[in-house]
Amino acid sequence: MTNGPLNRKLKMGMVGGGQGSFIGKVHSIAACLDNRAEVVAGAFSSNPQRSKASAADYNVAESRAYGSYQEMFDKERQLPEGERIDFVTVATPNHTHFEISKAAVEAGFHVMCDKPMTFDLGQAEELAVLVDNSSVVFGLTHNYTGYPLIRQAREMIQSGELGEIQAVRANYIQGWLRSKIEDSDQKQAAWRTDPSKSGAAGCFGDIATHAYNLGRYMTGLLSEEISCHLRTFVPGRKLDDYGTALIKYDNGGLGTVTASQISHGRENDVTIEIDGTKGSLSWAQENPNAMQVRANGQPHKIYTRDPNAPYMLASGQAACRLPAGHPEAFFEAFANIYAAAFDAIVAKHSGEKVERINTVYPNVHDGVEGMLFIQQSVASSQQNGAWLPFKCDRARR
Amino acid sequence: MTNGPLNRKLKMGMVGGGQGSFIGKVHSIAACLDNRAEVVAGAFSSNPQRSKASAADYNVAESRAYGSYQEMFDKERQLPEGERIDFVTVATPNHTHFEISKAAVEAGFHVMCDKPMTFDLGQAEELAVLVDNSSVVFGLTHNYTGYPLIRQAREMIQSGELGEIQAVRANYIQGWLRSKIEDSDQKQAAWRTDPSKSGAAGCFGDIATHAYNLGRYMTGLLSEEISCHLRTFVPGRKLDDYGTALIKYDNGGLGTVTASQISHGRENDVTIEIDGTKGSLSWAQENPNAMQVRANGQPHKIYTRDPNAPYMLASGQAACRLPAGHPEAFFEAFANIYAAAFDAIVAKHSGEKVERINTVYPNVHDGVEGMLFIQQSVASSQQNGAWLPFKCDRARR
Amino acid sequence: MTNGPLNRKLKMGMVGGGQGSFIGKVHSIAACLDNRAEVVAGAFSSNPQRSKASAADYNVAESRAYGSYQEMFDKERQLPEGERIDFVTVATPNHTHFEISKAAVEAGFHVMCDKPMTFDLGQAEELAVLVDNSSVVFGLTHNYTGYPLIRQAREMIQSGELGEIQAVRANYIQGWLRSKIEDSDQKQAAWRTDPSKSGAAGCFGDIATHAYNLGRYMTGLLSEEISCHLRTFVPGRKLDDYGTALIKYDNGGLGTVTASQISHGRENDVTIEIDGTKGSLSWAQENPNAMQVRANGQPHKIYTRDPNAPYMLASGQAACRLPAGHPEAFFEAFANIYAAAFDAIVAKHSGEKVERINTVYPNVHDGVEGMLFIQQSVASSQQNGAWLPFKCDRARR
Amino acid sequence: MTNGPLNRKLKMGMVGGGQGSFIGKVHSIAACLDNRAEVVAGAFSSNPQRSKASAADYNVAESRAYGSYQEMFDKERQLPEGERIDFVTVATPNHTHFEISKAAVEAGFHVMCDKPMTFDLGQAEELAVLVDNSSVVFGLTHNYTGYPLIRQAREMIQSGELGEIQAVRANYIQGWLRSKIEDSDQKQAAWRTDPSKSGAAGCFGDIATHAYNLGRYMTGLLSEEISCHLRTFVPGRKLDDYGTALIKYDNGGLGTVTASQISHGRENDVTIEIDGTKGSLSWAQENPNAMQVRANGQPHKIYTRDPNAPYMLASGQAACRLPAGHPEAFFEAFANIYAAAFDAIVAKHSGEKVERINTVYPNVHDGVEGMLFIQQSVASSQQNGAWLPFKCDRARR
Repeated sequence: MTNGPLNRKLKMGMVGGGQGSFIGKVHSIAACLDNRAEVVAGAFSSNPQRSKASAADYNVAESRAYGSYQEMFDKERQLPEGERIDFVTVATPNHTHFEISKAAVEAGFHVMCDKPMTFDLGQAEELAVLVDNSSVVFGLTHNYTGYPLIRQAREMIQSGELGEIQAVRANYIQGWLRSKIEDSDQKQAAWRTDPSKSGAAGCFGDIATHAYNLGRYMTGLLSEEISCHLRTFVPGRKLDDYGTALIKYDNGGLGTVTASQISHGRENDVTIEIDGTKGSLSWAQENPNAMQVRANGQPHKIYTRDPNAPYMLASGQAACRLPAGHPEAFFEAFANIYAAAFDAIVAKHSGEKVERINTVYPNVHDGVEGMLFIQQSVASSQQNGAWLPFKCDRARR
Repeated sequence: MTNGPLNRKLKMGMVGGGQGSFIGKVHSIAACLDNRAEVVAGAFSSNPQRSKASAADYNVAESRAYGSYQEMFDKERQLPEGERIDFVTVATPNHTHFEISKAAVEAGFHVMCDKPMTFDLGQAEELAVLVDNSSVVFGLTHNYTGYPLIRQAREMIQSGELGEIQAVRANYIQGWLRSKIEDSDQKQAAWRTDPSKSGAAGCFGDIATHAYNLGRYMTGLLSEEISCHLRTFVPGRKLDDYGTALIKYDNGGLGTVTASQISHGRENDVTIEIDGTKGSLSWAQENPNAMQVRANGQPHKIYTRDPNAPYMLASGQAACRLPAGHPEAFFEAFANIYAAAFDAIVAKHSGEKVERINTVYPNVHDGVEGMLFIQQSVASSQQNGAWLPFKCDRARR
Repeated sequence: MTNGPLNRKLKMGMVGGGQGSFIGKVHSIAACLDNRAEVVAGAFSSNPQRSKASAADYNVAESRAYGSYQEMFDKERQLPEGERIDFVTVATPNHTHFEISKAAVEAGFHVMCDKPMTFDLGQAEELAVLVDNSSVVFGLTHNYTGYPLIRQAREMIQSGELGEIQAVRANYIQGWLRSKIEDSDQKQAAWRTDPSKSGAAGCFGDIATHAYNLGRYMTGLLSEEISCHLRTFVPGRKLDDYGTALIKYDNGGLGTVTASQISHGRENDVTIEIDGTKGSLSWAQENPNAMQVRANGQPHKIYTRDPNAPYMLASGQAACRLPAGHPEAFFEAFANIYAAAFDAIVAKHSGEKVERINTVYPNVHDGVEGMLFIQQSVASSQQNGAWLPFKCDRARR
Repeated sequence: MTNGPLNRKLKMGMVGGGQGSFIGKVHSIAACLDNRAEVVAGAFSSNPQRSKASAADYNVAESRAYGSYQEMFDKERQLPEGERIDFVTVATPNHTHFEISKAAVEAGFHVMCDKPMTFDLGQAEELAVLVDNSSVVFGLTHNYTGYPLIRQAREMIQSGELGEIQAVRANYIQGWLRSKIEDSDQKQAAWRTDPSKSGAAGCFGDIATHAYNLGRYMTGLLSEEISCHLRTFVPGRKLDDYGTALIKYDNGGLGTVTASQISHGRENDVTIEIDGTKGSLSWAQENPNAMQVRANGQPHKIYTRDPNAPYMLASGQAACRLPAGHPEAFFEAFANIYAAAFDAIVAKHSGEKVERINTVYPNVHDGVEGMLFIQQSVASSQQNGAWLPFKCDRARR
C-alpha cells in the first residue's frame, strides 16, 4: 500500500480552490499524483453554495463540501481517524492563510499552505510557534524546490562539490501584469494587486519570495542584511510590480534577487545562477530537466534529470518519476513537495522523530523567513535601499 | 462531477504493470491525473502471486488483483455497471497485446493499448475488424500526440496555415541500447530485443513507429510507398537498433524517419520538422513547451504552450492544464491521450455517435498502420531498401 | 575605392599590441577587415627592440616600428598626408590611455582607444575637452555596440517600437579570474588586477563598463544616480572581481548591472534584457545572431541577423556583411565600430559636419560617462551602496 | 613577417567577385584576415568594363583589373615572382570553374576554388590529374570544415575518442528558394537553378555536397554506395530543391544526408550528428562555438571553442583566433581554409614535401569525390533510389 506503514491514502481537505481557481486544481493534482492522497472534503469557497457546486470538480461528496473552513474542521474532527481528513491544503488569497492555518493546526490537522505564508511577519511568527508546539507537519508550497535538479544541486552544494558559495543570482521574470488587468475582471490579478489581500508587497510577495527561497534552499547560506528597491511601473497600481534586492550572506557572499511582472511576453522565468569556489551552476525553470554545471578549463556539463545516471545524488534521484529524456515538469515538482511532507506525516504516524528545520519540503520556518524578506524588502525600499537586518533565527541552513 | 453526464469516475483495469514495471505507473498516473478515472482492478502479472503483491502499488483491493487477464475479464463482467471496470489498459510486452485486447473487446471493455499494437499486421487487422464491429473505444498510446503543441500544430496544418505540406523529417534518437544490456538483468531491454516478444523489428517497432505516427497525425498526409534500411550495430543483437526510412506521400511529398537506440548519451530525442508552402514548423519532445514556426522574411516565431494566447487554436488550448511558463511534460501529454479517449467513452455512454478514424486520440486504425509500417520497413530493408507499397486503407487523414 | 571620396585606405598607427598581446591583433583585424585601412606604423611596445620585433606581425616596415608613441607621432607628422598615419589605435593598459590619446589628438591624429578610456575621471574630462576643441574623430572600442542586432535594437527603441523603457538588466559574467592567476605569469590578469595600471576598479572597470554602456547605447535613457556593491572574492586580490550596481534613470526607470570575473566556466557572457511598455527584448553576446523580442499574447519572436529581412531597420542592416544563417561574430562587431568611425573620418575629410554626441560609434563622451560610472561605483561601494549622483552632462541620449 | 620563411604576403588574383557578388567579398575578407595575403589583381567580370569598375572594391590598381582570366594569367605570369599573383581564387558560377582552374594550374598558380569544383565528374578527374602532376596547391572552399570545433571533432575521432563511427546524420536546411525567385532579378538564384550553369544538381550540388563533405572530413569513413531521392517542390524549377541520400560506408556504417532549399524561414542550418561506439557528438553551424559530446551515464558535455582549455586538441586550438566566449564565425572559418592552404604554399616554397590527400584544407580530391556524389545522387534518384557505386579512389581517409 502506498504510504508504507500507514497503509492507506492520506485524506485531504481543501480550503479554497473553488470554481475558477487555478491553484486549487494544481494542489489536488499534485497531492494525488502518486496515489498517496485523495481529496475527500473541502471548503472550496467562502460562499457555501459555490463551495457545494465546486465539490464535483474534485469528486468530493456534496456532504463534505463545507460552507466554511471552520465548519470543515469542526465536522471532520468528529469523524474517526482514517475517515476524517488528515491534512488541509490552504489555497486561498494571502490575507486568509493565517487564520485558516492556525485553526487547522489547532484542530490537529497537518497543513500544506500556499506562499507567502501569511499577511505579515507577526502572523508568521505566531504560526511558527504554534506549529512548533504542535505535532503537525506544516509544508509551504515553494514548489520550485521540488524540481529534481534543484534537489540534486542542493545535495551537490551541501557535499561541497561547488566549494564555498560566494554569489547567488536569482531572477523571476513575468509579464502578465504589464497592463492594469486588475481593473478588468481578472480575479488572479485583482487580489494580488490589492494590499488588503496580498500584503505589503505585490511582485515581491508573489514571486520574488520564490526566487529568494530557491537560493536559500539550494545553498543554505544564511542572510544577514537586505537592501531593496521596488517599483510600480503600471500607473495607478497599488503595489510593486518590479524590484531588485541585494542580500549579504553571513559568509561574505552576495545575493541578488530581481523580480518583474511587467516584462512583455515573459512567462514564468525563474532562473538561478550560483557561483562557488570550485564550480558554478545555473538552472531555468522553463527548461527544468537540464542544469549547467561549469568549471574553468572543463567542458560545460549539462546534468539532465536522469535517475539512472551515476552523477545523480540520492535526493535528486528520489525526486524523479521518469527516465531521462521523458520530461517532468511543474506538476511533478509540485507533487514532490507533497511527497516529502507525506513522508514526514507517515513517519510521525509511525512515531518516528522528524526533522523540523532542514526539511526536504519548505516548512513554517521558511515561511517566517519569507515574510521577513517581504517586510524588510518593503521597508528598505521605502528608505531608498537602506541596508536592514535580515537574520532569521528560524532559518534553515 | 468529472466525466459530465456519466457522473462518476471511469474504472480502470490494468493488464501488466507489475512490480518493476515502468510503463504501468505511467499509465495509471496519466489515466488518473484529471480525477476522471481510478484503477480498481488489475492482472498485474501473469504470475498470480506477483499480481496480488502489486495491487498495493495501485491502491487496488487484493480481491480485484487477478491471476490472469482472462480471470479479470470474467469476474469483472459479472459486476454491475458502475462497479465493474469500464476500460482495460494493456501495458504488457508486444507479443501479448493482441490476445489481451481481443479478449477485452469481446468482453465489452474499452481498451487503451500500448504501441506497437500487436505482434504482426495480421493480428492488427483482425483486431481492427473486431473493434469496428464492436462498440468499444480503442485507444493506442502514441503518447507524443498528446502534447498540446502537437495538437496545435495539427490544427494549424488542417486549417491550411502552413499551406501544402511537402516534407516531413521525424527523428527519434536514443542511446540506452548502445551496449548489449539485454544480456544483463535489464528487463526492459530483454524483451524489446527479443524477436519472439517484440515482433519483427526492434528499434523500428519500439520508437520509429512513434516518429512515423507523429508525422501522420500532424499532417494527415497519406503514405503510398516506403523504403527502409535497418542496421544492428551492437554485435549479437537479434533485432535492429538503428534505421532510416523514406516515405512517399500521395501528394508527392517526401518523409524521412530516422531512429536510433545506439547514440551515446541521447535520451529520448523525438524531433519533427514539417515544411509547407506557406510556413515551416519544428518541435522537440525534450523541450515540449515551445514550437518554432517560420516563414521567409519574418522573425522566427516561438509558439509557447500558452492557453491564454490568441494564437492558440482550440485543440491546443484544450490540451493545456497550466498557464504559459509553467511547463507541462510527459505525464500530461500521456494524460491527454486518456482524456480524449475518456471523452469518447462518455459520449458513447450518452448515446452520441463518435468519430472512429480521425479521432483526437490514436486509435486501432493508427495501430494497423503502425504494424504495416513495421512490416514493410523490415521487408524493404531485407530487399536493400526496395520501395514497397505502403497504403493503409484504414489510415486517418 | 573604399572610403568613397577619400579614395584610399586609411593608415593606422598602433600603440601597443606587441608580441603576446591579444587585443592588438583584434584591433588590426577589425580595422582592416573591410579593406578600408591598413597598419603602416606602430609603437608596439615601450621597449624599442620589442617594438621592432613586433612589426613583422603587422606587416609593418621596420622603419615605421617606433620606440615610443612620442617618436611615432613626431616622425609620422612629418610625412605627407596620404602617407602618414591617419589614425592611432591605443591598445595599451588603461593607465597609459590618457597620455597617448592626448598626444595623438594634439598631433592631429584621429584616435581609436580601448576602454575604459582613461585612468580616472579627471583625465577623461580633460581629454573630452581636448577632443571637442579639435577636429579629430575619437572612437572608443565598446565593441559590443557593434553587433548588428544591437544597432537594430537601438533603432527599434528610438523609433518607439518597445514603448517607454522602464527596466534594463545587463550582466557580464566571466570566470577566468576565479583563481589568483595574476600571481603566475599571466600578463592579461596582472595589469587588470593592479590598481596602478587598471584604475580604481577591476571587474567593474574592465567589464561592467561594457554592460552599462550597452544599456545606455541601446536605450538612450539618461542616468541620474547609482548605487553599487563591489566584492573581491579571491583572497589577496587588490581590486574587485565581482559587483552589482543599480541605476536610476531620469524617466523613473531602473537599471541593474552585474559583473563577475569569478564564475567558474563562464566565458564572456554579456547579456541584456530591456523592458518597455510595448515590448521587451533580450540578447546574449555568446549567441549574437539572434535577439528575442516579446509582447504579451504574441508568439515570441526571434529576430535573426538577416540583412534581407523586411523587419531589419537601416542601421541593423548596414552592420551586416553576410546573409542570414552565416553567423557573424566578435571580429565583425569590432570592425563595425571602426567602420562607423571611418565614415566620420571620411566625412570630415570631405568637409561635412559630423555628429559628435550621438554617434554610431562610442565616442569620447561615452568614455567620460564610463569613467564616471567607475568612479561613482567605487565610491558608492565604499559607502555601503549609498546612492550617488550619476548625471553625465556629456551623455548621449 | 607573416608566412614565415616566405617573408611576404601572398598575392591573390580573383576571378569573379564583380560588383553585386557576395562570395567574392567573402573570399577576399577571408584570405586577407590574417594579414598573410592581399588582393592585387582580378578578372572580376567577363565584362572588361565591369571588371575595371570592380577593382576599387578590392583596392586593386585599375591596371591589374583584367578583362578576362586568360589575360590575367598571361600578364601576371610575366611579372617577377613576389610581384605577380601567387594564387588564384575562383569565385564564379560552377560551369566555369574547370576552365579557369585548369588554366591557372597550367600557368603555375595555386588555386582556391569554390565548390562544387567543376560542372561534372569528367572535368573533376581531369583537373585532379593535372593538379597531381603539377606543383600547385589546390584548395576547395568547403568552408564549414574550417570551424575550429570541426577540426577538434575530426582530431577526436581520428584519435579514437568516439570509438568506431557507425552513423552520420548530416543536414543542410535552407528556405531562400521556397518561391521561384529565379524568375525575378535574383542573380544568385538564377544561375544556381539553371542546369547549364549549376550542373546536374541544384540543391544537392550547392549544399548537400557541403553536408556530405563535412561527414567525410570529420570521420574519414570511406563511402561505398549511395542511394538518393531528389525532389523539385517549386513548380517549374529545372533542378532539385530538396533531397535525401543514404550512404553505405565501408565499415558497415550508415550515413544520411538531407538538404533543402524550400524550408520556410530556415537560414543556413548545417547540422551534423555522429555516433561512435564510445561517444557521440553533434554540432550546428548557426551556433558554431559549441559542440555537444555525449556518452551514456555521463553529463552531456558542451565543448566550447576555447583555445586555452585542456580538452582542446592541437588542430582545434590552432584554428582559434579569440579566447572562449568571444564568438568566431563564418569569416573566420572560411579564413581557416585559406590559412591551411597558405601553410602548404609556404611549405612548398621552402621545398618541404606537403600532404596532398589528407590535407587540413579540402583539396582537389575532395572535389572529385564531391562531383561523384552529385553524379551518383542524380543517377540514383533517376532510378528511384537504386544503390549505386560510390567508391572514390582519390578519397581522403
